[in-house]
Amino acid sequence: MRRSDPAQLFDAARGGDRRATARLLSLIETGGASARDVGRLAYPHSGNAYTVGLTGAPGVGKSTLTSAVIGHLRRNDTEVAVLAIDPSSPFTGGAILGDRVRMQDHATDPGVFIRSMATRGHLGGLSLATPEAVRLLDAVGHRWIVVETVGVGQVEVEVAGKADTTVVVVNPGWGDSVQANKAGLMEIADVFVINKSDRPGVDETRRDLEQMLELSDMPSDAWRPPIVATVATEGHGVDAVWDAVLAHRAHAEASGELARRRAFRAGEELREIVVTQLRERARELCTGERWDALTAAVVAHTKDPWTAAAEMLTTP
Amino acid sequence: MRRSDPAQLFDAARGGDRRATARLLSLIETGGASARDVGRLAYPHSGNAYTVGLTGAPGVGKSTLTSAVIGHLRRNDTEVAVLAIDPSSPFTGGAILGDRVRMQDHATDPGVFIRSMATRGHLGGLSLATPEAVRLLDAVGHRWIVVETVGVGQVEVEVAGKADTTVVVVNPGWGDSVQANKAGLMEIADVFVINKSDRPGVDETRRDLEQMLELSDMPSDAWRPPIVATVATEGHGVDAVWDAVLAHRAHAEASGELARRRAFRAGEELREIVVTQLRERARELCTGERWDALTAAVVAHTKDPWTAAAEMLTTP
Repeated sequence: MRRSDPAQLFDAARGGDRRATARLLSLIETGGASARDVGRLAYPHSGNAYTVGLTGAPGVGKSTLTSAVIGHLRRNDTEVAVLAIDPSSPFTGGAILGDRVRMQDHATDPGVFIRSMATRGHLGGLSLATPEAVRLLDAVGHRWIVVETVGVGQVEVEVAGKADTTVVVVNPGWGDSVQANKAGLMEIADVFVINKSDRPGVDETRRDLEQMLELSDMPSDAWRPPIVATVATEGHGVDAVWDAVLAHRAHAEASGELARRRAFRAGEELREIVVTQLRERARELCTGERWDALTAAVVAHTKDPWTAAAEMLTTP
Repeated sequence: MRRSDPAQLFDAARGGDRRATARLLSLIETGGASARDVGRLAYPHSGNAYTVGLTGAPGVGKSTLTSAVIGHLRRNDTEVAVLAIDPSSPFTGGAILGDRVRMQDHATDPGVFIRSMATRGHLGGLSLATPEAVRLLDAVGHRWIVVETVGVGQVEVEVAGKADTTVVVVNPGWGDSVQANKAGLMEIADVFVINKSDRPGVDETRRDLEQMLELSDMPSDAWRPPIVATVATEGHGVDAVWDAVLAHRAHAEASGELARRRAFRAGEELREIVVTQLRERARELCTGERWDALTAAVVAHTKDPWTAAAEMLTTP
């Protein structure tokens, strides 16, 4: 098998070859023509998975919670794939990073697929690479995909918020923290988890969150994010987290909210791809002999910049 | 005369009609096809003006200093045009804004042209509208153009930094201020002015600035920004500010730095126009029946987003 042929790798991955899946995810990370080939192969076979986003500030215990959730699912014989998205990391290639070491508990379990992802070259960045990776995992047969993002910058919140159900993890005393992107997190949360709830301040944090939820202007039949207290290191409350995810899924499916979200996301992704393609085209255009000649004409005042740009945008 | 015909307005402006110049500047602000027509008309006639950028944090006395500089130039019978750029203002149309009222001293002087500018619709924003406005003023015969920017955000610093000579205005005690975009200002300054120098802390501020200049890694024959102390309200030091501008101009012309800067700026502007045009095209593409049909196909999983985007980018 040619290790870089997307079609052959895809067939192998669909047959259960985990290394082939990992290779395909690397192609997606790298971006370019092969990434698009992978996307084209995966698309018709996708649409059956359910994605759960999991985000929160560094140090709240996201990886520990993810690991505990995996344990809970495995005890119920449910298979799961985890994508750990780390935009800040220049490192990549499926390596288990930082405290993701904790997830190695599940590394030898064939019912669990774990993969860290960074962007190596994907033009649209993680906001375009992540849905492609999710579709691949979907197409090779995964039914539950957990997307864990590291950090709460705009990109992380965006990536996590594009899941079917989004879990936002905070700690007691969250209200005092200035680092967290609170408004962004409130907007995307379908389930709140107060992790490390053996520490003081759980009730205040719960009240804080409830107050913020009151303030947001929601229709009366809308989903109201439940608030679940956990001690992920001990496994306390983890079953309740998953119950909340299942409850949200049932609500989203029954209310039509899931279909609306997915349609909206599809439109957003398409728009982002169009913009990315055009930006790529601009980059290609703004180099080379033709570009140099037109710039020189502008400098010499023999051609105004709008005319030069129009000429640049005309296929030679 | 049709008041909206760029060619006729341009002829009138070249003949000395200040209202026609004001109308053309409004067209540039508004953006669109007429703005481009103005740009095309002005370009071949431009290239003779010298631009002086003037920037600094709100409240440092930029307008007062600009007004004092105008007074100095007028006493020497030098004509001058002033563009006051205010990206934060939704207001526009040549109105004299805020403390620009002070410049009304010169409002009836035919040797002074003053105009406030905001963006009303120009797609490339002020970073594209400003050079166009400068070229128009240049083409209608102005030889000195002062571009004053309000505020020190990234855009303001960028706009001011695109002048031939850039004057950065600070106050005593500047070192303690956290608001100013210091690194950005250090990078663009050709002349420093410590205005309100009747207040305590002038020497410390001068030392601060000198220290920061030491830290920047410049070749030994490079221009070293002079630091001029002023009390603009009293007119103190204003002649020294202008002498510093003239000294920088002479150095920039003799060393070839002016030509290099202008060539670099021309390339930057062309690139920005190309990107703006492509973004405009993306906006046009991502609406309409074709867009709706392709989005629906992506949602229905009958077409992957990359294929849909590629179809979208093909002329129908």
